Amino acid sequence: MDEAWIKAACPEPSAQHRGAAEERQKLLTKPLGSLGVLEELAVRVAALQATDRPRAEVTPIVLFAGDHGITAQGVSAYPSAVTVEMLRNFAAGGAAIAVLARELGLSLHVVDVGTLAEEPVAGVVTDKPRRGTRDFSDTPAMTTADLDFALAAGQRAIKRAVEPKADIVILGEMGIGNTTAAAAIAAALLGARAIDLVGAGTGLNAAGMSRKARVIESALSLHGLDEGPAEPLTVLASVGGLEIAALVGAMIAAAQARVPVLVDGFIASSAALVAVRANPSCAPWLIYSHRSMERGHALLLDALGAAPILDLKLRLGEGSGAALALPILRLACALHAGMATFPEAGISGPAA
Amino acid sequence: MDEAWIKAACPEPSAQHRGAAEERQKLLTKPLGSLGVLEELAVRVAALQATDRPRAEVTPIVLFAGDHGITAQGVSAYPSAVTVEMLRNFAAGGAAIAVLARELGLSLHVVDVGTLAEEPVAGVVTDKPRRGTRDFSDTPAMTTADLDFALAAGQRAIKRAVEPKADIVILGEMGIGNTTAAAAIAAALLGARAIDLVGAGTGLNAAGMSRKARVIESALSLHGLDEGPAEPLTVLASVGGLEIAALVGAMIAAAQARVPVLVDGFIASSAALVAVRANPSCAPWLIYSHRSMERGHALLLDALGAAPILDLKLRLGEGSGAALALPILRLACALHAGMATFPEAGISGPAA
Repeated sequence: MDEAWIKAACPEPSAQHRGAAEERQKLLTKPLGSLGVLEELAVRVAALQATDRPRAEVTPIVLFAGDHGITAQGVSAYPSAVTVEMLRNFAAGGAAIAVLARELGLSLHVVDVGTLAEEPVAGVVTDKPRRGTRDFSDTPAMTTADLDFALAAGQRAIKRAVEPKADIVILGEMGIGNTTAAAAIAAALLGARAIDLVGAGTGLNAAGMSRKARVIESALSLHGLDEGPAEPLTVLASVGGLEIAALVGAMIAAAQARVPVLVDGFIASSAALVAVRANPSCAPWLIYSHRSMERGHALLLDALGAAPILDLKLRLGEGSGAALALPILRLACALHAGMATFPEAGISGPAA
Repeated sequence: MDEAWIKAACPEPSAQHRGAAEERQKLLTKPLGSLGVLEELAVRVAALQATDRPRAEVTPIVLFAGDHGITAQGVSAYPSAVTVEMLRNFAAGGAAIAVLARELGLSLHVVDVGTLAEEPVAGVVTDKPRRGTRDFSDTPAMTTADLDFALAAGQRAIKRAVEPKADIVILGEMGIGNTTAAAAIAAALLGARAIDLVGAGTGLNAAGMSRKARVIESALSLHGLDEGPAEPLTVLASVGGLEIAALVGAMIAAAQARVPVLVDGFIASSAALVAVRANPSCAPWLIYSHRSMERGHALLLDALGAAPILDLKLRLGEGSGAALALPILRLACALHAGMATFPEAGISGPAA
């Protein structure tokens, strides 16, 4: 496995700019702390961007799609065909994330890192080592070469999306079956029971969720991932997905390039856990956008020490929750830059 | 008291348009329910606006300011002078709500319904029955004539702000001392202890909060508001504020004019409780934007049956939380209108 770039250190946030941003927040015409999460976000982004004027204007969305051999085990409410059908819907502008990109003025970069599509889809970059993962109830989802390729595809996508410049990047995913892969990754890395990480995905009932959990438990045992802490990239290759591996590569590459990442929901958080375990120096660069309805997300967020911005009962993926949080981040930056200070406005301080 | 217009029925949301919006949500290319709160918002606004295309584009902000005689009892961390200083900051564009209005493309209508200002402030509409309320630890905050005037000032402001057209209206407030008035209103109407409704306001410490609670308990007793359910407008006149009365009038007037209201935080929710108790038919028109950090807000939201959109640890007022929730409402509407349906996109349904 060619891990060198994955393990390379990410830059540290600027303590100097954090301090300056905190001082500025104290001077703005409001009681200190009264803008709550928005104050924290402005200070955090100032430190990450090493600037006095944090910004979230230029925010490309990168959306990775892949298919999953594990769908042969009946773990999803929708057939695998939907992954490629949705690729066309992203490119045509009809999917939720495409509407959000349009409304927010964001570029949308869709990358097929492993769907079953036999031909390239118009408007989608094809950059994949294979068509779909293998069925991990039977064999590792990816070979080492597949994993290396998908991680690097994430890195390549970041390079395309953030040049010449990006303030923040939004990462999303699509792949029928990928809540099963994400739950398997989380169960292995957290040492948790599969049933505590399994949710409805696109719409399973209770019996479907039990089956999904049994499939995961059995696979973790098959791959020897049920016996204590496993190496994160081994877990990813064994039970992950190509789009999840691309997310891991993209998160680390963005952090290495000093671009903060707005992390979406359950699948993206499973990738974040792999990224942080494989390269802890990327952690400060990951901003968690929302708490999803997918059951396992709460456990993942706890493990990541994340306090997400939104809680809107979303469970769609595609980067949609991250896109919905972007206006909050933008307004936090605008308030930080645009509000008057107490001296500027001639406002009295607290009563003696 | 001239209550006739306050009690006049508000229109009902359109059941037909609600049904049509729910049907459309089922056809959009996403698992049903996966956009969570955004689906509920789009359906709700469609019913309120009686339209197939709910919108939140034209959204004026109306901000009412007033001063409070109760500040003589040392219930606020900041002096009353700050209310008028902030009026100038709203007009000059340096306050948080002014920055948010600019960023979101919203008109900001600031109305002095009762500050201590002796002269009109440039850029602010003056429409007030008196300069500041009386100290309600000693005497009712307002006379019946003051209350009628302030309620009608709210109605007049809505008329100015929503003509010729508004999709939604945001209502905010400013007034040093008004968390004390809001807590007193809530304690009286909910039959709760003052200490459970008192928070830090602009920045009280624990001793300050205890004093604030004692001032409220004593005033409720003085005005006979501690002995079971009181008439909401009597409570408002006894321990309320002029800007809170204007909010009550504005909420009811907006609902009567078929304009949904995006309700801000603790103070605005205390006004909503008065409005809903005085005229229950306005309830469907009030959309709660956020859960604030001010301690009493949770009790108020429970009493109102509200499930707010955001939870960002805000405690600023000015309508700032409502403005921050507006992008979510706008995106909910854009997704409802702009996403492709399953037949349009040729996407497969659930697996058999």
